[in-house]
Amino acid sequence: MIVYISRQEHFNAAHKLYNPDWSEEKNQEVFGPCANANWHGHNFDLIVTVKGTPDPDTGFVVDLKKLSLLIREKVIDELDHKNINLDVPFMQGKMASTENLIVEIWKILEEALPSITDTGRLHALKLYETPRNFVEYFGE
Amino acid sequence: MIVYISRQEHFNAAHKLYNPDWSEEKNQEVFGPCANANWHGHNFDLIVTVKGTPDPDTGFVVDLKKLSLLIREKVIDELDHKNINLDVPFMQGKMASTENLIVEIWKILEEALPSITDTGRLHALKLYETPRNFVEYFGE
Amino acid sequence: MIVYISRQEHFNAAHKLYNPDWSEEKNQEVFGPCANANWHGHNFDLIVTVKGTPDPDTGFVVDLKKLSLLIREKVIDELDHKNINLDVPFMQGKMASTENLIVEIWKILEEALPSITDTGRLHALKLYETPRNFVEYFGE
Amino acid sequence: MIVYISRQEHFNAAHKLYNPDWSEEKNQEVFGPCANANWHGHNFDLIVTVKGTPDPDTGFVVDLKKLSLLIREKVIDELDHKNINLDVPFMQGKMASTENLIVEIWKILEEALPSITDTGRLHALKLYETPRNFVEYFGE
Amino acid sequence: MIVYISRQEHFNAAHKLYNPDWSEEKNQEVFGPCANANWHGHNFDLIVTVKGTPDPDTGFVVDLKKLSLLIREKVIDELDHKNINLDVPFMQGKMASTENLIVEIWKILEEALPSITDTGRLHALKLYETPRNFVEYFGE
Amino acid sequence: MIVYISRQEHFNAAHKLYNPDWSEEKNQEVFGPCANANWHGHNFDLIVTVKGTPDPDTGFVVDLKKLSLLIREKVIDELDHKNINLDVPFMQGKMASTENLIVEIWKILEEALPSITDTGRLHALKLYETPRNFVEYFGE
Repeated sequence: MIVYISRQEHFNAAHKLYNPDWSEEKNQEVFGPCANANWHGHNFDLIVTVKGTPDPDTGFVVDLKKLSLLIREKVIDELDHKNINLDVPFMQGKMASTENLIVEIWKILEEALPSITDTGRLHALKLYETPRNFVEYFGE
Repeated sequence: MIVYISRQEHFNAAHKLYNPDWSEEKNQEVFGPCANANWHGHNFDLIVTVKGTPDPDTGFVVDLKKLSLLIREKVIDELDHKNINLDVPFMQGKMASTENLIVEIWKILEEALPSITDTGRLHALKLYETPRNFVEYFGE
Repeated sequence: MIVYISRQEHFNAAHKLYNPDWSEEKNQEVFGPCANANWHGHNFDLIVTVKGTPDPDTGFVVDLKKLSLLIREKVIDELDHKNINLDVPFMQGKMASTENLIVEIWKILEEALPSITDTGRLHALKLYETPRNFVEYFGE
Repeated sequence: MIVYISRQEHFNAAHKLYNPDWSEEKNQEVFGPCANANWHGHNFDLIVTVKGTPDPDTGFVVDLKKLSLLIREKVIDELDHKNINLDVPFMQGKMASTENLIVEIWKILEEALPSITDTGRLHALKLYETPRNFVEYFGE
Repeated sequence: MIVYISRQEHFNAAHKLYNPDWSEEKNQEVFGPCANANWHGHNFDLIVTVKGTPDPDTGFVVDLKKLSLLIREKVIDELDHKNINLDVPFMQGKMASTENLIVEIWKILEEALPSITDTGRLHALKLYETPRNFVEYFGE
Repeated sequence: MIVYISRQEHFNAAHKLYNPDWSEEKNQEVFGPCANANWHGHNFDLIVTVKGTPDPDTGFVVDLKKLSLLIREKVIDELDHKNINLDVPFMQGKMASTENLIVEIWKILEEALPSITDTGRLHALKLYETPRNFVEYFGE
């Protein structure tokens, strides 16, 4: 009996899409206003889904308070009110796209999750850049 | 050609997380404010997803009016404006977590669904306890 | 130049609508399922609006971090994961309707607001019991 | 490394559910108010999900601006401010249900998608008829 | 002590914007796709706000169950799954704009409200045509 | 007969809260993470409300397509995918708070509105910085 449980957290960050190997013209052509030299930003929403069998004593797949704290300590504190291109160690040398960001967040949470659950496993991440643009990643 | 069709319903209920085999201290330690003796509550949202092939005569996988009525009769009427721990027969003897609740709702709807559709099958449930905390179950 | 600034917070609580001066029958007749003896509950959303002139040095009518903390300390901590009828001192002896609740929250915040702003004044409260049912109060 | 990226677009359209092979009575019995002779309508939301590996140069699975334009040109312009039964060539001769509509939209987008991406593939569509009623299709 | 209480209801309807005194060209020029001959439609959301003093016995400005029923009987049943131009008596001879619609809904509810409350008065209506387009009316 | 009609638009921008007359320490103390040197950002939502009497020929207070275009040309194009502190002429020399931003947007729209309506007047602006933090301004 596998139940999937999810927690949504959010962060506000600046970024730009800019490939330093390309000319300014090519960056403008490919990324348009997303390449604005002085950055732009978003309210990001991150949904973390853990799968597992509910514990008979607690009824929990994972304690959502612990999951919320873990996401905040490991991910939100690294990204909230930051510049994704300049301030975030795990994004250095990578294009600051939501696709790349969600893969890096997966690595962090997959490693950290065993500290709060014996049996729950990271199943999915969903990352909203805007209410109309979002990415999902399942670790493979 | 399999299409998945979903209907969202809602109910307002009280509950607490409390394990009667544990001391008051252990309940407080594990569940914190969720163990409040006098209960707390939520506006729950339930999304029911049925999968199947659209009927050529109606274009329907399942008649959503019938699905909505079925969910209300079998699930919502049992939970809305109720105390999940005290008033809900199918939750007796179980921790009143959303994980356990969604599994019990599945059993009810899986049994009831054939009364309104020959070919549609229950595919998924999604249960929001708050806009930021939710569970999903696929029956396995 | 008067700008209105708002902060939304939330709490989850149980309550029932029940007039102890009335018979059980009359309570059922007037309040229906809202009078359920074993309580029900909601995810409440509270929006607090402060009006004032932006400070030239900060651009702020009021510091939203301070406003958020004040609302949590004075209001949310009293209501979150509580039973409004039984656990909340300022609701004792009153019907636990959202109308009465918003008036009591106003009294608390109006008294507390001067501790975080010299010039901002409490302008409005908006309290959602469900996404479709809400009340507003302007202090008069 | 497969990332799923989604874009939401919307359109406002009229339709009715009416089977011309049936009597008026049978249409009323099966479809109720949805068969209203003079139509009714909805604000539809369409979420298109593309799966693929992020391009190392751009960080993109697919350029969301191109995806948004493609959806608008191929799908939204055909449906927005239209009558689905009368004005939409690809729905002629079909029941105007959301189940049938999502399957036709899939055919259009699956054919069109290679014009904007070499490696991304159409993964899923989600079509909201109302915030509480929606369908999903995965192309099989 | 005046509290404002609101209830949200919804309806799905078809309409078009078309002035029969104008040429087809002028209608197209002014209304564009909103003048589509075969109609289009929306999911409308209607928020009704009543102001008054909470009753000491109930804590209510107005019983929200009664208010919800009143709105459904007097307004929603006239509009839901209908064509606003063709099927709705109180819109005959009027442009089917949300501006005109909200004024007509006001007239109906202002007259009907005394049947469910002695002291509450209609304060405001808010009508969403889409999540981004809405009108408000205060009866003057 | 005065009806209020509103249109919601959005933009994504970077900013920081930083007073150049203050020390780094004081900026950190007052603005905390909002003063992050490398900026952060938000998805802003702007709601513009125009009041007036519906035109008998169109049923419109103001043509929402024209209003939407005006907001985009005069406001959104100046702010979307920009840095509010560095890239926006009308915010130069001002703290980049939402309070100051909404007042500047008012000035622009109040001056521009007569170009699309003879009788409609700007009534209110509402600017969301996040779903939980927003400001309103009525021009006085």
